[in-house]
This record gives sequence, structure tokens and C-alpha cells, in this order.
Amino acid sequence: MTETFAWAACGHTVMGMSDGEAMTAHPSRATLAEVAQLAQVSVATVSKVLNGRSGVSADTRDRVEALLSERHYNRRSASQTASTLIDVLCYEIDSPFGAAAIASIERVSREQRMGMVVSAANDDHRPPSGWVDDVLRRQPLGVVLVASELDAKDLQRLRSRRIPLVVIDPYGSPASDAPSIGSADWNGGFLATQHLIELSHTDIAIITGPDSMMASTARLSGYRAALDGAHLPIRPEYIRSGRFHHADGVQGGLDLLGLPAPPTAIFATSDLHALGVYEAVRSLGKTIPKDVSVVGYDDLAIAKWAGPPLTTVHVPLTTMAEQATHLVTRLRDEPELAFSRVELATSLVVRESTAPPIAA
Amino acid sequence: MTETFAWAACGHTVMGMSDGEAMTAHPSRATLAEVAQLAQVSVATVSKVLNGRSGVSADTRDRVEALLSERHYNRRSASQTASTLIDVLCYEIDSPFGAAAIASIERVSREQRMGMVVSAANDDHRPPSGWVDDVLRRQPLGVVLVASELDAKDLQRLRSRRIPLVVIDPYGSPASDAPSIGSADWNGGFLATQHLIELSHTDIAIITGPDSMMASTARLSGYRAALDGAHLPIRPEYIRSGRFHHADGVQGGLDLLGLPAPPTAIFATSDLHALGVYEAVRSLGKTIPKDVSVVGYDDLAIAKWAGPPLTTVHVPLTTMAEQATHLVTRLRDEPELAFSRVELATSLVVRESTAPPIAA
Repeated sequence: MTETFAWAACGHTVMGMSDGEAMTAHPSRATLAEVAQLAQVSVATVSKVLNGRSGVSADTRDRVEALLSERHYNRRSASQTASTLIDVLCYEIDSPFGAAAIASIERVSREQRMGMVVSAANDDHRPPSGWVDDVLRRQPLGVVLVASELDAKDLQRLRSRRIPLVVIDPYGSPASDAPSIGSADWNGGFLATQHLIELSHTDIAIITGPDSMMASTARLSGYRAALDGAHLPIRPEYIRSGRFHHADGVQGGLDLLGLPAPPTAIFATSDLHALGVYEAVRSLGKTIPKDVSVVGYDDLAIAKWAGPPLTTVHVPLTTMAEQATHLVTRLRDEPELAFSRVELATSLVVRESTAPPIAA
Repeated sequence: MTETFAWAACGHTVMGMSDGEAMTAHPSRATLAEVAQLAQVSVATVSKVLNGRSGVSADTRDRVEALLSERHYNRRSASQTASTLIDVLCYEIDSPFGAAAIASIERVSREQRMGMVVSAANDDHRPPSGWVDDVLRRQPLGVVLVASELDAKDLQRLRSRRIPLVVIDPYGSPASDAPSIGSADWNGGFLATQHLIELSHTDIAIITGPDSMMASTARLSGYRAALDGAHLPIRPEYIRSGRFHHADGVQGGLDLLGLPAPPTAIFATSDLHALGVYEAVRSLGKTIPKDVSVVGYDDLAIAKWAGPPLTTVHVPLTTMAEQATHLVTRLRDEPELAFSRVELATSLVVRESTAPPIAA
């Protein structure tokens, strides 16, 4: 069922040691008592800050946090070593994408007899208020973020407690130095567009995701590269954007098909966008793929179930989630391991929503 | 966002005290030492059994379990009282139904600053091996089962540790004396069928769920009652069954539409069954609702997104999950509370997949 954890087999970027900032060994580590002395507070106060408990002023908390981080406090409590919890922060846990990621993390966690604690990220892909405090109290053996992100302060708080973190399908820029596991978005965007070009489409539109999302920018870039490669013009009016929600696909589809020169094919960049385009096409009394071809992205279960079944880019979400979970447990035992970003391959799944344009 | 927890407002069965078996106060409770003495083992051994740890023979474990249960051992450890975890066992966590339930439980858990530990039930709706041991080790403040069930021995183990349990949409018969929160399945089945009758359909088929599932039997019974009420015959060849999976809907749809006298309407009893019927109809070159009307059940997000949008029975899953989570936390603080089964109302949502039959 589960694939063996073998980085070598991924055939992707596996980076060497990081710059000593994150999870590398450090020569001089402070003890709890030393941090307390430096901060001029009691050991009990440092302990409260460490475990995310209340009863410490904001000023004191900041001072202790800074020292914990500066002095590389070496915390690995008995309860943490024995922890059987893994914490997951996931964007849209009830979306088909979020649910699929959680199910895969659960499978690996269970095999290792770990309990998976799931929290939903906010609309801005950030944790809900108090989440990091709760995590510090729970002392999980590690944290997995799915399509969500932490600010620098929260990252530092986890780090200073030696709680490893792995990111699946990172939301923001790759600036964060936490290890991440994504998939080849540029390549996926290229494959989808190339498929439409090979079917003789020349009027190919795109509905992208949020600009702030790396995956979204990379898919758009792949689309542009494929059009460029075929010497097809890139028309600004054919580029719409959404937030990967169904409603954005409906709106984008209606806008595009309402143009004086509508496209004959739409690369929707997510399966939910694609189902929204289906609704737009249906509401205009047109049919897929006769009047317009549609390509999705993700290859969730709903893609197979759509009418007609959706041609889409397969994201190896199960493998990504499994590898992230294995990695976070490895990082607990071998904190010196340092990975940067891993990208798994994407592939095109051709179903029934794409065909040559009528004129062709 | 969240509704106030008010049982009176539900307008449904709320039962009084149970028979003293489950969560009622008991006059003579044994201590850990007394149980150890009776079992002729050390206190450490009883403690191991209590906390689901290994290193105890099966015989000894059974003997201690029996005594813990018989003598109503009164355990409420400091760590349990302070527990900030809630354990959820859910059938098909990546199905739209499972994911929606988990998202609602997470919302309520978060408001109460509790971490939600999620485990996936097996195909037979039972916990994976070792799950109860893990729960005993984690000492959550309570357990919520979603469309899954425990055998009597596991129920007893939770009970003897005073870990409250609430069931959402119980899978099996209502024999289990754990409190449960379901929805009005008979009524939902009746409403769906009645809607088709009012559209002048007389040839109405059904694709039921598993016989072993109470919800499934109740929906079928509602279908029969509506046909009976309209003096329409119940034809055995119009009754197919599945396991609420997409593929069962495809097969059931193909079988029904391949009959010498095919039905003009299909009550699919789940949204996934309904989407499967959509595929069957499409593959036969027919259209919904012109050639055949389809009614789903659940009202998941995918129902709105279907082409055409699906007429379905709304199950108040969000409210069910919220109430279950509130109940389990109330049971921790007031273990004397004893509820039996609560059923929330279902309603019909008419969209575009139903219309009068062509002949009408």
C-alpha cells in the first residue's frame, strides 16, 4: 500500500545541509536554567513559554522566545521523545484536495501508531489563533502543513522547541526554509496546454489560481511556455484568475465564453475550476468537448465522476502526503537531516473533456 | 457560526437515564489497588491495562478488564481531566461525507481549544487494529464515531475508563447504547419518493445502500411507504442496492435502464450513487431530467456542482457533527447525562435533475 520512503527514487531535487539556521547540530546549547538567568525570570516562567501556557506577559514572552532561539536551547523532553502525535495544519480540510491529503497522512501515521491531530487553516492559509500554543502544549513529534504557511515568528517557536516541520504543496513563496514536498507545477501547466495544442486548438484560455501561490504562478508559466513553443500568441483577455473554487470556474467560464472571439479550449488549472467551467458551458446551452475543450488540474476523484469525465493533470498527492509524513518522523530521529524542496512528477490523464476544435 | 447546544430546540427524542450500565453514577467504585488485589496482579499491571500499554498477557488483560468493568472502577486521572484531545473514528475520511463531518467537528473542537485526532475506520466500519489501545493511551476527553461502530468489548473498555462516546449517523443497528445523533432517514426517503410521485412519475426505482445499515433500510422503507400511499406497485426489479459508492450507482443505473420496462425516475439514496447514475445515463446517450429523473441523498457540495445540479435530500451533517462534539464535551463534565438517539430533520432540495416524465 504505502511506498517505501526512498528519496533517491524520487528523482528530484534533494538538497544538502542547510546553513545551520534550522535543524543542524549546534555546538553550544543553553539549558533551561541558563535561559532563565539570561532573561532574568524564573525557570517556571521559561517553562511556561516553552509549553505555550498562559500567565506570562507579552514582553517577557518575547524576551524568552528570543533567547531560546538565539541560544539554541536544546529541548527534547521525555514526553516529546515519547510523543505519539503528529500535528497537521491543512487549508480547506473538507475540500476534495484537503481530504485526500489528510487521508494519506492518516494512513502513514496509523502504520506508525501515531495519532494525527488535524486543524483547519484560515482563509488566508494561516493557522487559527492560538494554534501554535496548542501545538507547543501537545508536543507532537512533528508538524505537517498542507497548502498553508506559518509566519517567521511561529516557525521560530517550533524550531526552538525542536519540533520538525514539513510542508506539502507550499502555499506561499519557497522562501521558508522548512523542507517541502510539492509537485512539478510548471511541467503540469505545460503538459495540459501542449495537449490542447496537439489537438489543433489555437485559441486556448486559462483560469489561474491566486497570484500569491507559487503553484499557480508556475502553472501559468507552463501555459505561456507551451504557447510560445508553438508560436501561438498569448492574449491577455484569455487569462482569468480565481481562487481554485467552483464559483471562480463558473465566472471565468462565462466571461471567456462571452468574449467576441471566445476560446475553443480552457485550461482551468484545478478540478474545481473545471467543474465550474462545466456549469458555465451547460448554462450557455453548449457541450463539452464539442463546443469547448476543458482541462483540469489535480485529478481528484470528482474528475473521473464529472460528465464528461475530465481530462486533467495528475498530482501525486497520496505519495506527497506519505513522503511528508515519513520525512517528519525521520526528522525527529535524525534532526541533522536537511532537505530543501522535493518536487514529484505530474502527468496528464486524458479523458473525455478534450477533443479537436470544430473548425479543425 | 456555531449553533448553541440546545437539546430542547432539536424537537427530537431525548431519553432519560439509562439502566446504570453506561454513564450513570454508581454507589460502590473500586480503586486501582482493589482491582489489583482482586485480579492478583500488581498495581503497575492494572495501570498498564488501563492505559493500553503492552507487556501484559492476554489472560491477565481479560481478567483485569472484566474486573474494571464489573467493579465500576472510578478513573478520572488528572491527565484525562486536563485532556485537550478529542478522538474521531470516521468511515471513509476522504469521501465528501466523511470530510464534511470532520470539518464540522474540527470547528467545534477548535472553539474549545481541543485537538481533534482523526482515525480512519476500516471497510467494515470498524476501527483499525490497536486503535482502542491508542485511545486509552491518549486519554482523550471523549470519542466521536462517524458512520462507524465498535464491538461490545471495545465499548466496554472505553466505558470502564469513563471516556464518553457519541455516534454520528450510526452504521449498524441502534442496539448500541451509546448516545447517537442521526437524521430522519425514513422521512428523507419518503420526501424524495413523494416528490417524484408529485411530478407524475409512476415507474420509480431505488438504489439502496447496504442492508446492514440502518439509514439505508429506513430510506427504503420511506420509499415503500410513499409508493403505498399513492397506490403505486412496488416492483422488486426496481429495487437495486449498492454501498453508497459511485461505481454502484453506475451499475445500478445501467441495470435499471436496461430493463424491458425501464423506470422514468431513480431515487439513488446517496449523492455518490446519483453521480454514478448520471454516468450510466450519459453512457446510454440519454439526458437528465428529460429521459430520466434522479434524486440523490446527503446534499454534499458535489450535488450542486453536478450537471445538471442534483435534486437531493439535505442531511444536516454540519449540525449533527457540531451537536455530537458539544455533547461529548458535556458528557465529560456531566457523566450522569444520558441520551439515547437524537434525529435531526431532513428536507428536500429541488434542483434540476427532476422533471415530469415525457409521457406525462
